[in-house]
Amino acid sequence: MTQSSVTDATLMRHALSLAAHGPLTGGNPQVGCVLVDAHGTIVAEGWHRGAGTPHAEVDALSKIPSAAGLTAVVTLEPCNHTGRTGPCSTALIAAGVVRVVYAVSDPGATSSGGADHLREAGVEVEGGVLAAEVEAFIHPWLTATRRGRPWVTVKWASSLDGRAAAADGTSQWITGTATRQRVHEQRADSDAILVGTGTVLADDPSLTARGDGGELMPHQPVPVVVGERPVPQAAKLRSHPAGLIETHSRDLEQVLAGLFGRGIRRVFVEGGPGVASAFIAGGLVDEYLVYLAPTLIGGPKTAIGDIGVGTIGEQRRLAITAIERLGDDILLVARVSTSSTSEGF
Amino acid sequence: MTQSSVTDATLMRHALSLAAHGPLTGGNPQVGCVLVDAHGTIVAEGWHRGAGTPHAEVDALSKIPSAAGLTAVVTLEPCNHTGRTGPCSTALIAAGVVRVVYAVSDPGATSSGGADHLREAGVEVEGGVLAAEVEAFIHPWLTATRRGRPWVTVKWASSLDGRAAAADGTSQWITGTATRQRVHEQRADSDAILVGTGTVLADDPSLTARGDGGELMPHQPVPVVVGERPVPQAAKLRSHPAGLIETHSRDLEQVLAGLFGRGIRRVFVEGGPGVASAFIAGGLVDEYLVYLAPTLIGGPKTAIGDIGVGTIGEQRRLAITAIERLGDDILLVARVSTSSTSEGF
Ligand SMILES: NC(=O)c1ccc[n+]([C@@H]2O[C@H](COP(=O)([O-])OP(=O)(O)OC[C@H]3O[C@@H](n4cnc5c(N)ncnc54)[C@H](OP(=O)(O)O)[C@@H]3O)[C@@H](O)[C@H]2O)c1
Ligand SMILES: NC(=O)c1ccc[n+]([C@@H]2O[C@H](COP(=O)([O-])OP(=O)(O)OC[C@H]3O[C@@H](n4cnc5c(N)ncnc54)[C@H](OP(=O)(O)O)[C@@H]3O)[C@@H](O)[C@H]2O)c1
Repeated sequence: MTQSSVTDATLMRHALSLAAHGPLTGGNPQVGCVLVDAHGTIVAEGWHRGAGTPHAEVDALSKIPSAAGLTAVVTLEPCNHTGRTGPCSTALIAAGVVRVVYAVSDPGATSSGGADHLREAGVEVEGGVLAAEVEAFIHPWLTATRRGRPWVTVKWASSLDGRAAAADGTSQWITGTATRQRVHEQRADSDAILVGTGTVLADDPSLTARGDGGELMPHQPVPVVVGERPVPQAAKLRSHPAGLIETHSRDLEQVLAGLFGRGIRRVFVEGGPGVASAFIAGGLVDEYLVYLAPTLIGGPKTAIGDIGVGTIGEQRRLAITAIERLGDDILLVARVSTSSTSEGF
Repeated sequence: MTQSSVTDATLMRHALSLAAHGPLTGGNPQVGCVLVDAHGTIVAEGWHRGAGTPHAEVDALSKIPSAAGLTAVVTLEPCNHTGRTGPCSTALIAAGVVRVVYAVSDPGATSSGGADHLREAGVEVEGGVLAAEVEAFIHPWLTATRRGRPWVTVKWASSLDGRAAAADGTSQWITGTATRQRVHEQRADSDAILVGTGTVLADDPSLTARGDGGELMPHQPVPVVVGERPVPQAAKLRSHPAGLIETHSRDLEQVLAGLFGRGIRRVFVEGGPGVASAFIAGGLVDEYLVYLAPTLIGGPKTAIGDIGVGTIGEQRRLAITAIERLGDDILLVARVSTSSTSEGF
């Protein structure tokens, strides 16, 4: 009855493709599941549609009258925790599943233990199948969950020489429409958008995720403002469809811990320069999205200010993971370099 | 006897490929030539190997005992000027060539008129064949010759946030070895390397073009120093194999005119920030080579300083012509945008 590992991997890759149907936001991971008979034939598919909806395993189980004798192939270790839904381990056992294959262990403090629970019930359990691919796929969620702090993406847009505005502060039309649209999509893929009071006071931004035609996208991340100054009563942010989180704080670690406590796993930091620099200086950035416009501006308005690098050995080395052209602009995606920061010395 | 224009274009493309064997440096353009019989068969090839050597037409003519009745297909209008070599128009007439096809007119004040001279001698002449491709190929030389000022390439290397050094001025190992090697190749493709006194005094650079193993490349561009302060007697630049041009001047237009007068057509500006910014502010840059290293530095040492942009409408829009990965670094090649500088408004 044990299937070959080649088959397990193939089935897991299919489960992973199902996982991708789920949302990036909402605090829960994207998870996919297939139920397979003894011949290796998929008899049901499921995926998780976000917090408050059935987990992938339960979704798959709901598609067929009985799962007796079946194998469940699921991208994340079945949970063992009664949240808004019951534990998946219990559901699988009750449905008569005899074998469970999963890729990545559940990192949650309250939700792990599903594999042990299944084994105790006599279910054959195999973990680690296609683990690297699945890890990479849900890396932001896993990272956030493991360390208890949201995944932080910092975005800025600048000229090729690193300026975010001209000397007088004007900054309209540095980047083009393709970039602006992409930023809206990235907002929609986040749980929260974070800005400093400086940006709120200077720009009065609405920070909604909007489509091509200016229409609101279905998912709106909640705006978060850091800094001690209050958000003006008349600020557009006060009518944001997802509400507003005013922190009245400059303590970014504490702010992030608070956001994690509210279920926020993906934070999109939109600046401005003061806040972006503080996140970098604090070592709190997981991913960088740097939009470079084909223009030179010079002068004092740098997109990034002081980040605490006094001498070159302290530079923050990154690894560029993608380069993309967006109209006339260039998007560089980077993460903290996994090689040492003293690389090159 | 007139060949079809398809054949002319094909022959011109071959002449262009021959032109590419010649050097980029030395003040003369890269030119290629084929001599073709009445059947369209190439009977001789030639190209120009640089100032003081035979022009492409004369090189091709030298390969065969007689060119009577042949067609010459040459990338640049045959010159009409007695320099270190005699006029090519005269040589073609004397050799019995009956038809001349060329791509681009000779822009030189003293060397143009070859087509007219040939026609007067009864030679059939056709210009403009494959003109756009050939124009693009020798664009820097053509631009320099037409306006009487060298083609100026400005290069800088910075972090993703536009810094050339840490706060204390240290800047070792921002870019990697692939970038450093590429810079040496670009030096070797230039007639002159230009730096400011600031860089000379701070770094005491040798500004030679060196290979992988540190060996001198065959062609060495002459170093040019701009700025009023003198180059120290002990400076490495004083033993540069190509000599040293000290300008004692901050007047960049005058400096460029003087270099043009010495036969210099391609100037590679290596900085530092003060000089690069002055070239940009003065509208004197034809091409930008921006090396971006995957690192963040922040702080005061920007690669580009003030370039006279007070408000965003004055930004210097560029068009990116190439993006290349060099090891971990990224090279962006850009030229002044041909669309208006108010693009996006
Ligand atoms: N190019 C881009 O991508 C981009 C993006 C956004 C904004 N901008 C531009 O940036 C400009 C505003 O610049 P900015 O730097 O003032 O804006 P900012 O970064 O949004 O706000 C800076 C403020 O954030 C607060 N803050 C909270 N935590 C902090 C910490 N740990 N360290 C430092 N400050 C902290 C401080 O305000 P308190 O005094 O209230 O504590 C500080 O003054 C605007 O002109 C805007 O247009 C550009
Ligand atoms: N990242 C890179 O790609 C790169 C490349 C080269 C150098 N660097 C670094 O740059 C630093 C030196 O910076 P820097 O800005 O002082 O160097 P610089 O640009 O080489 O020199 C500046 C000097 O150039 C002279 N100059 C000539 N014409 C000028 C004009 N039209 N406008 C303004 N100045 C003119 C002035 O000197 P006078 O007072 O003598 O007239 C001025 O002080 C060094 O630390 C070096 O390591 C970085």
